[in-house]
Amino acid sequence: MKFNENFLKLEENYIFNDLKLQIQELENSDTEIIDLGIGDVKLPLFPLVTSAMKKACDELSEKKTFLGYPPSQGYLFLREKIARNYLDEGACVDADEIFITDGAKGQLGNVLELFSNNLKVLFLSPCYPAGAEANILLGNKVTFLSGNKENSFIPNPPFDKSFDLIYICSPNNPTGSAFSHNDLKIWINYALSTGAIIIYDGAYSAFLPDGYPKTVYAIKGAKNCAIETRSFSKSLGFTGVRCGFTVVPKDLGDCNKLWKRRLGCRFNGVSYPTQRGAEAIFCKEGKAEVKKRINFYKTNAEILKIALKNKNLWYNNTVSSPYVFAKVPNAETSRDFCKKMLAKIRVVATPGSGFLQGGEGYFRLSAFETRKKILEAADRILTL
Amino acid sequence: MKFNENFLKLEENYIFNDLKLQIQELENSDTEIIDLGIGDVKLPLFPLVTSAMKKACDELSEKKTFLGYPPSQGYLFLREKIARNYLDEGACVDADEIFITDGAKGQLGNVLELFSNNLKVLFLSPCYPAGAEANILLGNKVTFLSGNKENSFIPNPPFDKSFDLIYICSPNNPTGSAFSHNDLKIWINYALSTGAIIIYDGAYSAFLPDGYPKTVYAIKGAKNCAIETRSFSKSLGFTGVRCGFTVVPKDLGDCNKLWKRRLGCRFNGVSYPTQRGAEAIFCKEGKAEVKKRINFYKTNAEILKIALKNKNLWYNNTVSSPYVFAKVPNAETSRDFCKKMLAKIRVVATPGSGFLQGGEGYFRLSAFETRKKILEAADRILTL
Repeated sequence: MKFNENFLKLEENYIFNDLKLQIQELENSDTEIIDLGIGDVKLPLFPLVTSAMKKACDELSEKKTFLGYPPSQGYLFLREKIARNYLDEGACVDADEIFITDGAKGQLGNVLELFSNNLKVLFLSPCYPAGAEANILLGNKVTFLSGNKENSFIPNPPFDKSFDLIYICSPNNPTGSAFSHNDLKIWINYALSTGAIIIYDGAYSAFLPDGYPKTVYAIKGAKNCAIETRSFSKSLGFTGVRCGFTVVPKDLGDCNKLWKRRLGCRFNGVSYPTQRGAEAIFCKEGKAEVKKRINFYKTNAEILKIALKNKNLWYNNTVSSPYVFAKVPNAETSRDFCKKMLAKIRVVATPGSGFLQGGEGYFRLSAFETRKKILEAADRILTL
Repeated sequence: MKFNENFLKLEENYIFNDLKLQIQELENSDTEIIDLGIGDVKLPLFPLVTSAMKKACDELSEKKTFLGYPPSQGYLFLREKIARNYLDEGACVDADEIFITDGAKGQLGNVLELFSNNLKVLFLSPCYPAGAEANILLGNKVTFLSGNKENSFIPNPPFDKSFDLIYICSPNNPTGSAFSHNDLKIWINYALSTGAIIIYDGAYSAFLPDGYPKTVYAIKGAKNCAIETRSFSKSLGFTGVRCGFTVVPKDLGDCNKLWKRRLGCRFNGVSYPTQRGAEAIFCKEGKAEVKKRINFYKTNAEILKIALKNKNLWYNNTVSSPYVFAKVPNAETSRDFCKKMLAKIRVVATPGSGFLQGGEGYFRLSAFETRKKILEAADRILTL
């Protein structure tokens, strides 16, 4: 049996598993470790969400209301709410173009089954590594186009080249930079003129302030060239519940039809209580709760920035992200710097090199923590 | 952009979606349709399962007990229970070899990411189509080895040929035939001597009577050549909750290590309430409940068989399955026969051709229904 040799092209450990191993090594030390590494939420689910989930469990325990296999595409009750929400975001997306998923990470690789092999794939980097690794595992040719401090991590398209797929994440994980309408328009026109398809990762769209496009479909032409993945992980605190959605437009060749066909043999849908939990947020009260929660995490980010500023550390000053992307102050590798930070002040940061090309020389702090821990982390950063 | 041309090799609709479309067409007719097509459970979740799920929801709604990302591999509390259960099944499987999944269907294709491209893959058929279709989509070369009435749908290995992967399902869906220890031993020795890896689908293992191996790992040598997928869908009624597990043994080359690496970038774990729900069944009371439920569905199958016998229709007389696999009585295609059956007696059956090579000329009835509906279906079959 021949194993997939593309595994050899990956780092030995996935970046966030690597961080976990480092933390485990130190866990019995005196000073409590504050983990601002992996972007995992720490605040509980909203009561209206857990009520809906528990009600769904009750329904499943009664013969009359029991439900078996969910539709592979997701329940219409949830897809319709999402479709209506797209209208509020200035985009027209039909419920039949929406596919409920068990989170966004897997989708970044799953969508590749739509296309032929040996694709030329462009990643705007630094970037969340899951999508690039999924492509590498499949044997696709991955190219990185790095943003930098000078272009605020929003590079222009390489007009003299063309690609099959282009991955864009806005607001970007890890840099926090958000694409404006105009930025996106430039990339969509580039995709349309070169025949590329954009895989648009909107996992953090809830953090975008007014004035920024919350969906790629707010831009004309996007439905002819873009697939969008979204997640409830950060907005609803669903990292442990697992739910998101993917939009595969009907105007995108045969993609919508092929995606439905793929689901037939590859996926059996998302847990019913989970879908009911996600649905519960689409009301006035729910949206207000989410907004409050997002602002809480954004304030956390501001607190971390104040500490970095005090230490004269450069950071990407965006207002659209739960992450603070900062510059390593010396010539060390980001990995060495983060290791030293962990050893000295017991704060976990993610080395920029984990976010692939263009990430070296930076580190990322996650603001997904309780206020108490963020304040404590900020204090410790001052002693760096 | 080049789309995946392998889609053209599939039937236009996935078989069970095709059945759903046929049912929708007739739904407003006078006589209620009894759906014995797709194998979807109809009895509610066990109270001890929903209690555990609801308790987990409560934990997620409290700051102190909130949990974020689950381990990609699954929570140890569930993997340890499964590992202990393997001991009861006469196999030694370590918790670190067990991977919790959101069901079994996706796994039949996901495991392919471990291996190189252009594999030669053998399916013992007729078979559940998801695994074969996943391989076709990926461009692998799929070969079928058909069982038949004469060998009770348990064919012998083709000793003069070799394959990279071999898919085996026991008890088989759709035929219901179960592999004995000796049957499995023959296939494992064949795999070991030819260097093939067996993908063992044990989704229906709960239906096996005493004396049959409930896991491939009950047979010596299996840990050197087999990956096993299992599901809680039919035993716990989890078709709508979504949970199962895959075993990737440490003795199987680098598979265990590579699989963990794959999960890093491809999967974020299964919902916490779901895993707590599954865990709840691993107690004396829970196991008794499952046994009762399984026997209930098996009795349903016996009732259907009596009706078929009365009509002089041949069926595969196994005692290990929630499905009845029967012979189309005339020269019609199975698709035409099932369409006529639906039109005449309003009972949905799955045409054998949907289960690929060797399935034509047969039809499958699912026994996953309430007793009332099974009795009604049996009555109607008598009027065929």
